[in-house]
Amino acid sequence: MSACSHRAAVRAGILITGTEVLTGIISDRNGPWLSERLVELGVDAAMIHIVGDRPDDLMAALRFMADSEMALIVTSGGLGPTADDLTVEIVAQFAGREMVLDAELEERIAEILRPLMSRWPGLDAEAIRSANRKQAVVPRGATVLDPVGTAPGLVVPPSDGACPIVVVLPGPPRELHEMWEKAVQTEPFRRAIAGAKVYRWGVVRLYGIPESEIANTLRAAADASVPLAPLEITTCLRRGEIEVATRYEAAAEPAYAAFLDFLAERHPDQLFSRDGSTVDEQMASLLAGSGWTVAVAESCTGGLMSGRLSELAGSSAYFLGGLVVYSNDAKISLAGVDPALIERFGAVSTEVAEALAVGAAMRLGADFGIGITGIAGPGGGTEEKPVGTVCFSVASRDGARLTRRLRLPGNRSDIRERSTTIAMHLLRRVLVGDVSAAPSSSVRDARTERA
Amino acid sequence: MSACSHRAAVRAGILITGTEVLTGIISDRNGPWLSERLVELGVDAAMIHIVGDRPDDLMAALRFMADSEMALIVTSGGLGPTADDLTVEIVAQFAGREMVLDAELEERIAEILRPLMSRWPGLDAEAIRSANRKQAVVPRGATVLDPVGTAPGLVVPPSDGACPIVVVLPGPPRELHEMWEKAVQTEPFRRAIAGAKVYRWGVVRLYGIPESEIANTLRAAADASVPLAPLEITTCLRRGEIEVATRYEAAAEPAYAAFLDFLAERHPDQLFSRDGSTVDEQMASLLAGSGWTVAVAESCTGGLMSGRLSELAGSSAYFLGGLVVYSNDAKISLAGVDPALIERFGAVSTEVAEALAVGAAMRLGADFGIGITGIAGPGGGTEEKPVGTVCFSVASRDGARLTRRLRLPGNRSDIRERSTTIAMHLLRRVLVGDVSAAPSSSVRDARTERA
Repeated sequence: MSACSHRAAVRAGILITGTEVLTGIISDRNGPWLSERLVELGVDAAMIHIVGDRPDDLMAALRFMADSEMALIVTSGGLGPTADDLTVEIVAQFAGREMVLDAELEERIAEILRPLMSRWPGLDAEAIRSANRKQAVVPRGATVLDPVGTAPGLVVPPSDGACPIVVVLPGPPRELHEMWEKAVQTEPFRRAIAGAKVYRWGVVRLYGIPESEIANTLRAAADASVPLAPLEITTCLRRGEIEVATRYEAAAEPAYAAFLDFLAERHPDQLFSRDGSTVDEQMASLLAGSGWTVAVAESCTGGLMSGRLSELAGSSAYFLGGLVVYSNDAKISLAGVDPALIERFGAVSTEVAEALAVGAAMRLGADFGIGITGIAGPGGGTEEKPVGTVCFSVASRDGARLTRRLRLPGNRSDIRERSTTIAMHLLRRVLVGDVSAAPSSSVRDARTERA
Repeated sequence: MSACSHRAAVRAGILITGTEVLTGIISDRNGPWLSERLVELGVDAAMIHIVGDRPDDLMAALRFMADSEMALIVTSGGLGPTADDLTVEIVAQFAGREMVLDAELEERIAEILRPLMSRWPGLDAEAIRSANRKQAVVPRGATVLDPVGTAPGLVVPPSDGACPIVVVLPGPPRELHEMWEKAVQTEPFRRAIAGAKVYRWGVVRLYGIPESEIANTLRAAADASVPLAPLEITTCLRRGEIEVATRYEAAAEPAYAAFLDFLAERHPDQLFSRDGSTVDEQMASLLAGSGWTVAVAESCTGGLMSGRLSELAGSSAYFLGGLVVYSNDAKISLAGVDPALIERFGAVSTEVAEALAVGAAMRLGADFGIGITGIAGPGGGTEEKPVGTVCFSVASRDGARLTRRLRLPGNRSDIRERSTTIAMHLLRRVLVGDVSAAPSSSVRDARTERA
């Protein structure tokens, strides 16, 4: 192992282990998650490396990261009770620390297993005890992070005092997330990242413009002498919205404020979130604060809109329920759509979307109703209504209507998912009063407009 | 660079470049995709490495892969026309090859750009021509892969004849996929993987046992002299099911068959898929083949069960619709649940779950109804019914009932997601006839049993 000298920036490497991740059986979400957390701490996440459960490959990756001047290595996975889980042993070798049984930790793990074992009385208790003794053998001098599942995590400083330290975390994301918070608090961790600059982060969200337009906006801001140099701006498309994340040092706060003002002036209708809140969070706080209730009648989204409205804790305060009206019979009998409307305009039409919205509100007794009907594909498209054609309507008890017909790109899953985003934004617009209570016919003229 | 000697297996490294991938703004799908393609060719995908757009980090990763005895390196990304796209230049340095302008390639790229430029007349034509001349400068002696977008790919053999060769591919998945097919056909690629063994793959799925039990089963199989040595077995938990994936050479087919038989004998009720099909696919083919229809009335899952039943293309043939009955009023008015049942047993009870299942089938006119009611949390739990308590019922038109009360671990999102898996398995059991048409009271005695 080379002696490491810190560069100006504190760099960290992320090491993801597991054959099932490497072979694509499971897609890795821990690498990007850890990368985001490190960046928040001012640490430069310089590489993510994924290897299978092979001791040589694991050790080679650790050495490579040390040679590449990482101050910190975070590993994920390989902490299970079976023999192919060998991260701890390899990390101990890497750090030059002997493996020792931590009797107190063994007892804590036994404590965790007791209720599990009583639930599964058929299991071989002795085999489990011995398998989990393995999880209590740890490098001497390492800081143990209490198990969230059954596996403890570790913060392992190298025996010779040179960098890097290794933070050893479990693979299941829920366990990893909870244990990360503990790891960050440990003294060796704080010491390893001591040189990291602390940045501020600003996140804003826009909806209804293409991502390429943001590049133009940045050029226009530079032309208008907005001081962009101290701002590290990243844009990305997430769930159909554009997220603009900006990293800057405290001294650049006025530059960030000027940038935000420029954005707001240029995209007044599209910039819906200046504080990073998602449209779901905005919907929830608009509804929860008002005492209003909402209901859905949906066809092509097949329950996903209801699923999204009930996603946040506390949603039962404003979400009453939904009708998944996949068949025409269900549209008629459950949502009360007039069969003549379906006959005349087709099941996928703005007229039926509006009838679904009104029907949902009436059947559930809600203040607002959402109607969605469309063709998610791959079959069912026609020349007039190709796959991706989706009609939306939001109706309020007092007669306001916001109705759209759109053509969405992508496959079945993209179309269903994107449709829930569009409906959520239409609902938000109605909730903030950004819609005149115009007769539906005049609103319907806007059907080709972008939602 | 070290002189590389091939190991028995042909190993490949995958190098993903791009700051937006590293920082988690975009999640990488190319690494796992390439890994699966390599494995299909009998190549051992030994590592995936993700770095930002930094020349030093890129070069260090290439050298590390060469030192780790990769016969082949596949890169993705960094082929654009701007200055921070530098993969080709670094790969040329790594391979010891000089960069030269390929005039014919320059003309092909110009050809591709012509229609784009006429569509965007405001663009600076000279700037674009010069930017794209950059894309026509390639390492001498490399095989050029025709652009799918505007960027060409490359197969770059090292100048000294030692391994590894480097396959340079673009970042956008659609371009990468199409160009991969061309790369595989090139002579240097075929030569690099000449020693690769072709493997077979078997995937089976189990439901209703903990992952640790599979480790015991493998031990028991070894004790029973099942020949496991030629089988490379990986197990993983996916959506609440255990997936067992096995890689083996053709000659080990009898060993794999013996292993499967052992699994089936030891876990007859848990091994629900011997061909790798998911429970969703099995549900779809059982329903589509029979002409039967299904409907849902769900509370805590809030639409996700309907969303899952309508996920696969063609689901409108068997999925009629659903009722999302979040409030008690909705349970009564929409699903026809007797208010006295809610009064007596509570909204989260096996009695109400069964009433929901029956109500869903009746209201939608379906052959099978699914009822789900539970406490997804974080609030709403009581001592008797803590967060995670979920009741399920599947009812058939001919009177069969399968009803369960379970306590699920995890957070709100875990509980909702896991509940859909459990309901799907209960539906499957009813569809394959693995339930007696017993009166519901006797079934309800089994409420503490595992689903």
